[in-house]
Amino acid sequence: MEYEVKFLPDGKRITIEEGNTVLSAAIKGNIDISAICGGKGLCGKCIVEVIEGRTNPPTDHEKRRLGEKISKGFRLACQLKVHDNIVVNIPEQSRTGRQRLVIMGVEPPSRLNPNVKKIYLEITPPSLNDPRGDDVRVLDILSKLNIGNITINYEVTRKMPKILRESNWKVTFTILGNEIIDIEAGNTVDKCYGVAIDIGTTKLALFIVDLNDGTVIFSDGIMNPQIKYGEDVISRIQYASQSEDALREIQKTIIDGINSLIEKGIRETNIMRNNIYEVVVVGNTAMHHLFLGLNVKWLGLSPYAPVIGKGYYTRAKNIGVNINPIGGIYTLPNVAGFVGADAIADILASRIHEKEKLTLLMDVGTNTEVILGNKYGLWCCSTASGPAFEGAHIKFGMRAASGAIERVRIKENFDVEYVTIDNEKPRGICGSGIIDAIAEMLRTGVIDTSGRIILQNHKRIREGENGKEFIIAFKEETANKEEDIVITQDDIREIQKAKAAMYAGYMTLMRKAGFKKEELSEIIIAGAFGSYIDPSSARLIGMIPELPISKISFLGNTAGSGARLCLKSIDYRKEAEEVVKKMKYVELAAEPIFEEEYINAMYMPNSDLESFPEVVASIKAPKVVRKYKKR
Amino acid sequence: MEYEVKFLPDGKRITIEEGNTVLSAAIKGNIDISAICGGKGLCGKCIVEVIEGRTNPPTDHEKRRLGEKISKGFRLACQLKVHDNIVVNIPEQSRTGRQRLVIMGVEPPSRLNPNVKKIYLEITPPSLNDPRGDDVRVLDILSKLNIGNITINYEVTRKMPKILRESNWKVTFTILGNEIIDIEAGNTVDKCYGVAIDIGTTKLALFIVDLNDGTVIFSDGIMNPQIKYGEDVISRIQYASQSEDALREIQKTIIDGINSLIEKGIRETNIMRNNIYEVVVVGNTAMHHLFLGLNVKWLGLSPYAPVIGKGYYTRAKNIGVNINPIGGIYTLPNVAGFVGADAIADILASRIHEKEKLTLLMDVGTNTEVILGNKYGLWCCSTASGPAFEGAHIKFGMRAASGAIERVRIKENFDVEYVTIDNEKPRGICGSGIIDAIAEMLRTGVIDTSGRIILQNHKRIREGENGKEFIIAFKEETANKEEDIVITQDDIREIQKAKAAMYAGYMTLMRKAGFKKEELSEIIIAGAFGSYIDPSSARLIGMIPELPISKISFLGNTAGSGARLCLKSIDYRKEAEEVVKKMKYVELAAEPIFEEEYINAMYMPNSDLESFPEVVASIKAPKVVRKYKKR
Repeated sequence: MEYEVKFLPDGKRITIEEGNTVLSAAIKGNIDISAICGGKGLCGKCIVEVIEGRTNPPTDHEKRRLGEKISKGFRLACQLKVHDNIVVNIPEQSRTGRQRLVIMGVEPPSRLNPNVKKIYLEITPPSLNDPRGDDVRVLDILSKLNIGNITINYEVTRKMPKILRESNWKVTFTILGNEIIDIEAGNTVDKCYGVAIDIGTTKLALFIVDLNDGTVIFSDGIMNPQIKYGEDVISRIQYASQSEDALREIQKTIIDGINSLIEKGIRETNIMRNNIYEVVVVGNTAMHHLFLGLNVKWLGLSPYAPVIGKGYYTRAKNIGVNINPIGGIYTLPNVAGFVGADAIADILASRIHEKEKLTLLMDVGTNTEVILGNKYGLWCCSTASGPAFEGAHIKFGMRAASGAIERVRIKENFDVEYVTIDNEKPRGICGSGIIDAIAEMLRTGVIDTSGRIILQNHKRIREGENGKEFIIAFKEETANKEEDIVITQDDIREIQKAKAAMYAGYMTLMRKAGFKKEELSEIIIAGAFGSYIDPSSARLIGMIPELPISKISFLGNTAGSGARLCLKSIDYRKEAEEVVKKMKYVELAAEPIFEEEYINAMYMPNSDLESFPEVVASIKAPKVVRKYKKR
Repeated sequence: MEYEVKFLPDGKRITIEEGNTVLSAAIKGNIDISAICGGKGLCGKCIVEVIEGRTNPPTDHEKRRLGEKISKGFRLACQLKVHDNIVVNIPEQSRTGRQRLVIMGVEPPSRLNPNVKKIYLEITPPSLNDPRGDDVRVLDILSKLNIGNITINYEVTRKMPKILRESNWKVTFTILGNEIIDIEAGNTVDKCYGVAIDIGTTKLALFIVDLNDGTVIFSDGIMNPQIKYGEDVISRIQYASQSEDALREIQKTIIDGINSLIEKGIRETNIMRNNIYEVVVVGNTAMHHLFLGLNVKWLGLSPYAPVIGKGYYTRAKNIGVNINPIGGIYTLPNVAGFVGADAIADILASRIHEKEKLTLLMDVGTNTEVILGNKYGLWCCSTASGPAFEGAHIKFGMRAASGAIERVRIKENFDVEYVTIDNEKPRGICGSGIIDAIAEMLRTGVIDTSGRIILQNHKRIREGENGKEFIIAFKEETANKEEDIVITQDDIREIQKAKAAMYAGYMTLMRKAGFKKEELSEIIIAGAFGSYIDPSSARLIGMIPELPISKISFLGNTAGSGARLCLKSIDYRKEAEEVVKKMKYVELAAEPIFEEEYINAMYMPNSDLESFPEVVASIKAPKVVRKYKKR
């Protein structure tokens, strides 16, 4: 028996088999609904309002997440089963929404040497005295131009004789690697494009590059549509590991997203799809594998070995990416299960592997890649910093979209000043706002260094369900005027866990590599989210080690920059293979040092106060710390 | 409106749109019917007997070809249009029939070095201390075994992680060229097969080779099923040039034939389809192109340039050959439009390119490839010797099947002794029988050296429609007891044209290369048909130059041998590329020398009597010759 689910406010109707959840109907209909935990009833983000139709009784998950909201008709889409035609409304806060994405990143100057080359030839036609084959004729000329060892793709051989003769033997060949993948009549050398893609766990950035001059002619970003299957990497690995069909489905989701961006780029720039010849992709190892449709089961199981570690070439049509049908795909090397091609791209773009002095690079995201080193060596790890910086697991957390509080200052009297994105009335707090808020609470002594809210008897302090809460915006100031926007004790814990993971990752690498604190001379923050962090706040809460602010730089989406570099020059691909060989990967799951550092980093800035002398001198928070050492 | 055509004796029913011919219904139904001219009404071979149904009036072609047979209900399938449900019978002589095919050929000893290699590896599983990617793990081992620069096919990466773990990291990789194309659990190194195919214009020979020891484990041949589209290369080029669909259709015909042989081979040898990894194909340039599905339009137009001249690699699945789905195809190089990969295979197998002394190689078929040379140089051409040697254009000609007269001796009193295939009562005369008959007629003076029948007043001489005929078998001796089996004046002309083409090809090469007659020291006859020719008869009629019989050898299907060599060792592929570079191709269509030699070679043995002293001394035929010299 099938029923229809109608989703308001858009009014889209989805038919689905009885017993399935409203969330699966939304996924089926590609309807924008937040489902951070992947439909397990844990995150409480997929709230919908039942307008019409019989429903199943609320589950324990819903009771825990929604409380008395249930009586007002709110339910979790992942728990709500379809046993009737049903109409639900998706409140704005349940939508993943359009988001401010940092797409561009810093990119070093590069010499063009792309893997795809177009070459215009005027060929002497065959004659009775020279009846060589068309292929011989072409390859002989190329050989004279020092372009040797070339093969001709089968599809090209099928159309070549006609095009050669119809164009009067004046043609342009497209050579990808060492294979002729296309032939066009006349001189089309100026029409040669490639696509660079950075697949983040939460965002997808795509660039179309003119391979004749290296300019970016189109760039855009969207949310990674795989978010429907869970906001973190592990949820998606679990989903994709269910079956071959599930893997294909989650792969198709990202490919559809990529194709929609390519479509948009083609429309906006008026180029031809057939003139896009190569796609270079970076992403963490799981994103890389899901893009390629590789089995991710063992990425989620110790020792987390990837299927593909090296740079990998395949055909666009194997993957379903809509460029020239014989176009190619190149993915950068992965270091390990949780340090992927995006980290290599970060390195290529930031040139950390060429630096004389010890440098720390953190690509901040749902997973944060931590890379430490210089030209003498590179250490790396990945820490599950979680989606807290993206607003998840935070009571009033939201993505960096309109109305998100992104800057917070707390005055001496604990009054709060804040800035929202687009200067809208506040709807919630995004990552940089949360870091700011907590740093300010620490600086002004609203909390102590253990993160406990200690301020009392102030209008901004209230008792919540799970302890004290600090009010950032009173409900009258907010967009819906219904609720105060607060930072809860639990929110602080979430941020502590996230920043502790990052710092502990850094410290683990430092200790494993045997570096001394004083050796660190530079910090590079990369990643879409990273660009909006106030470095003082990040330093204050101990997310990054204490260095002068001048030594902290933000390079933006260096993963995307690295992808573009490899698109523009194969020299960077060779460099990538060299870099990956030099990298020493530390698996934190197996590392007692990490556990120890993590517990110490739960304090703000850290239980190791000596490492943060300036920070410690600047905060009013009482220093309640207990140093932990693993026996 | 559609009607049904029922074909007797098999009773197969084919539905076809009104207005189409019975021949096209037969082609659609894959029904065995001879159509040498490709359905133009010219060859008169596709005779059917109308049993039931309304028919269109006989065409002029039919009146010319069938005469009074029309009144008995006989029609040409290519002229008979479907305007009713109709039942026709296909008489035995209209069937292409099962034929005695020479499949094997002489093959020089070869060192195994196939393009496909299987390698069994026991791999150390990943651990937290060594979390390298599965690909890195594999490629690192191969690299240590000096197998470098290897890529992994996309389909393999999709199944690799599961197979590695389920097999406890004991697996066998199949490497084709420098790409891993398969992974199997456990050690399957002993299961490694390849297929060698010789696509002749009239026959298709297929060999399955065990690539571990080079042995042929299966060999079989069938008629080239493309014969439905015309018996000669030009008819098929014309058919395939009509449209992309026609090209696909004629390609599919040969691929289906190949797949049926592979199927049979798999069944008979109990090997697995997935363990066949590569197919090596030879054929003349047109057969090569039709196999690959390449545009043949310009193969039929001066200057007859092929699309592909070099050795070519592609995937079996591009072509539709049913082996391992990621298996490969290799086709040998083509020299020019009418000297193809089969000629290169002939050279590789006969080693003519290594000989010190001047050698003539003729691969006799519907087209005869003529190769002249030694290790110092190779000259080649292709002559349209036509299907007369295969029995076409000969009044009682038939293929080398049961009941075909294959040996003829004429006594002093002009009585005839003959041998038939399978010792059946004679049904017609096959190629070797026709050559024997004419040689004997020449030797005994039934004809003069111009080919004219001069014997008179003998019971074996009768007047036919177009002049005199010599009776080989009286009707009482024959299978159907209805007609005398005769050699007509026209038959003699057909054979004269065929042998003149071959000899003129040889002489043109001799003169273009500047060799003297005395330099020729060896003749090699290759080709399925060639094996049955009596060398004395061939020499007598001047099909080949006069050398001692001991200097004439028959190597059988050397094209197939060359294909097997290239399957067993890539060293031969390199050699093939070297050989093709050394070959000097002479296009006879543009060659006045050829015209002159052709006219002289219409005499038997030749108007140049001095070149055939032994022959001239042995024949009773009056020497009426006029030497022709082109101004």
